[in-house]
Amino acid sequence: MPELRRDPITGRWVIIARERGERPYDFIVEKDRVKGGFCPLCPGNEGTTPPEVLAYGRETYNPNGPDWLLRVVPNKFPALIIEGELDKRGEGIYDKMNGIGAHEVIIETPDHHCTIEELDLHRLEFVFRAYRERIVDLSRDSRFKYIIIFKNFGRSAGASLEHSHSQLIALPVVPSRIQEELDGCKRYFDYKERCVFCDIIHQERSQAVRMVLENDEFITVCPFASRAPFEMVVLPKRHQSRFVSMDDRQFSALAELFSETMKRLNRILPGVSYNYMLHTAPIKHDSLEHYHWHIEIMPKLTTIAGFEWGTEFYINPSPPEDSARMLRDCTGLGEGEKAQCEGSGN
Amino acid sequence: MPELRRDPITGRWVIIARERGERPYDFIVEKDRVKGGFCPLCPGNEGTTPPEVLAYGRETYNPNGPDWLLRVVPNKFPALIIEGELDKRGEGIYDKMNGIGAHEVIIETPDHHCTIEELDLHRLEFVFRAYRERIVDLSRDSRFKYIIIFKNFGRSAGASLEHSHSQLIALPVVPSRIQEELDGCKRYFDYKERCVFCDIIHQERSQAVRMVLENDEFITVCPFASRAPFEMVVLPKRHQSRFVSMDDRQFSALAELFSETMKRLNRILPGVSYNYMLHTAPIKHDSLEHYHWHIEIMPKLTTIAGFEWGTEFYINPSPPEDSARMLRDCTGLGEGEKAQCEGSGN
Repeated sequence: MPELRRDPITGRWVIIARERGERPYDFIVEKDRVKGGFCPLCPGNEGTTPPEVLAYGRETYNPNGPDWLLRVVPNKFPALIIEGELDKRGEGIYDKMNGIGAHEVIIETPDHHCTIEELDLHRLEFVFRAYRERIVDLSRDSRFKYIIIFKNFGRSAGASLEHSHSQLIALPVVPSRIQEELDGCKRYFDYKERCVFCDIIHQERSQAVRMVLENDEFITVCPFASRAPFEMVVLPKRHQSRFVSMDDRQFSALAELFSETMKRLNRILPGVSYNYMLHTAPIKHDSLEHYHWHIEIMPKLTTIAGFEWGTEFYINPSPPEDSARMLRDCTGLGEGEKAQCEGSGN
Repeated sequence: MPELRRDPITGRWVIIARERGERPYDFIVEKDRVKGGFCPLCPGNEGTTPPEVLAYGRETYNPNGPDWLLRVVPNKFPALIIEGELDKRGEGIYDKMNGIGAHEVIIETPDHHCTIEELDLHRLEFVFRAYRERIVDLSRDSRFKYIIIFKNFGRSAGASLEHSHSQLIALPVVPSRIQEELDGCKRYFDYKERCVFCDIIHQERSQAVRMVLENDEFITVCPFASRAPFEMVVLPKRHQSRFVSMDDRQFSALAELFSETMKRLNRILPGVSYNYMLHTAPIKHDSLEHYHWHIEIMPKLTTIAGFEWGTEFYINPSPPEDSARMLRDCTGLGEGEKAQCEGSGN
């Protein structure tokens, strides 16, 4: 019997239809890594990107030189541009404004062939620290209301460059998806006087059927109302609405848990394309008692077809309990559910 | 300068970023028609589908025999199943219910190779009449709250069979996308005392920059806040909230306009994959003064990546004004914007 499940944050429903779907190991993973050729993100090619806005380097590092370990540059083909005013205006019944925003590329490693799960933990921690540094800097710009950070890996997930990178877009409006989460969390808080994400963490740890990994500070779970097989969310155990509020201990713990999470995904579905998205509170809020930042991880295994377009209802052919069990079981490095993160570095 | 545009119905924003995108004729259309082999939807293979729930046949037609012209059957691999009770229940903080619903396949023609834009107008009219007949029948089932009809054409748009067909799913909840449209339309109506879709029709006809086609009863436009290149919406000119309220004159006019709309899409982007989705008022409403049924047509030209997943903000590399101009200009059959629909039949 298929099941309808309601997302406790947004209120949206998904169909979990096991009978219809492939068994988990039947998923076809398209090996669609982006083709090679000249790479503008590799060391030595700094002149082919706009000048960097942030870099972490070796001792010998000079700005825009080749000795960097992580580098953030404006996107050469930005979706939004940084210079100008919003100029909000109408056109009859319609509303529009200029496409003002920031669009940056976080180059996570100088090594063209290193994937994020292969990054040394210390380096991965600096990826997250770079996210924070750019969010803090761009939050000072009063034109911006929201900053989203995301990663596209693999061509079918939207990547056009192979070299490991994430992207940041600063927006002059709060996106509808985030507003929907905020509204849902607020409704829950008004009714229960508790954060819905904190309740999710509590229930997932006690039920232990959708848990993937945890350490002292973070957990990875497959959401109850997963939209796709192997969807995961990484959550801080402390109540915290803003990513930028993390302390040193959390940065280190996040790198550890995130690295192991991505290693396991890649062990089960080698080379799978995926997206991950950082959801944090909008810029204007110092901290919110009803919201809880998180990272959504979405492997690209299903197609968005007419039903999903027309309804925003998703049909998931594999229960999250099955995905979570497989992700828990594929330790590969021993010691059961404990995160084991050595990293191969570069 | 890229532009941010707000959808007047849902309030969602899109980025129209012409500088970033391909020129319209640069879009790569993946020729990904579904592979051949045995077709369970072809005449003679009626025994391989569940027994039909509706058929329009030739004079010689017998139920579940081969002499049909249009046939509706339950989906052999349904996302939801028709038998059982909803059994709404909780699991800690989570909500779920049984996956009760209907999932049907509308086989639009006995001719395996005929596409919807090649259908004779009279036949196409009967496709829409079959949609109505199935909606009316399933609306009597008190477990259902919403019925969505959609079509997936081409593998990248989610089709798994080549033979021209659409699908119907009856749901025990109103999907979030529809509820969002209803809420947005209601807010507009409460403020203006007018239907937002009626206002859109008025403005589009007077501005004439996003118009594609019109006849006495219907218009096709590229929406102001199009999420993708060549997105289109087909709207009845009369205020009408329910698809099932159409009269004979409208059915005939819809077939004419829709056929020419799909012909033009196929002329500009031969063989392009696409989805279309019928949005109508939920079952419980007899008629609504603030809602207006419509068909959304979404060609598959862009990839849903991390930004879209994370924000539900879409980046459209081509302004709808450009798409509409190309669709207007590619008459192919002469006489400017007048719909010219002969059809090749089968």
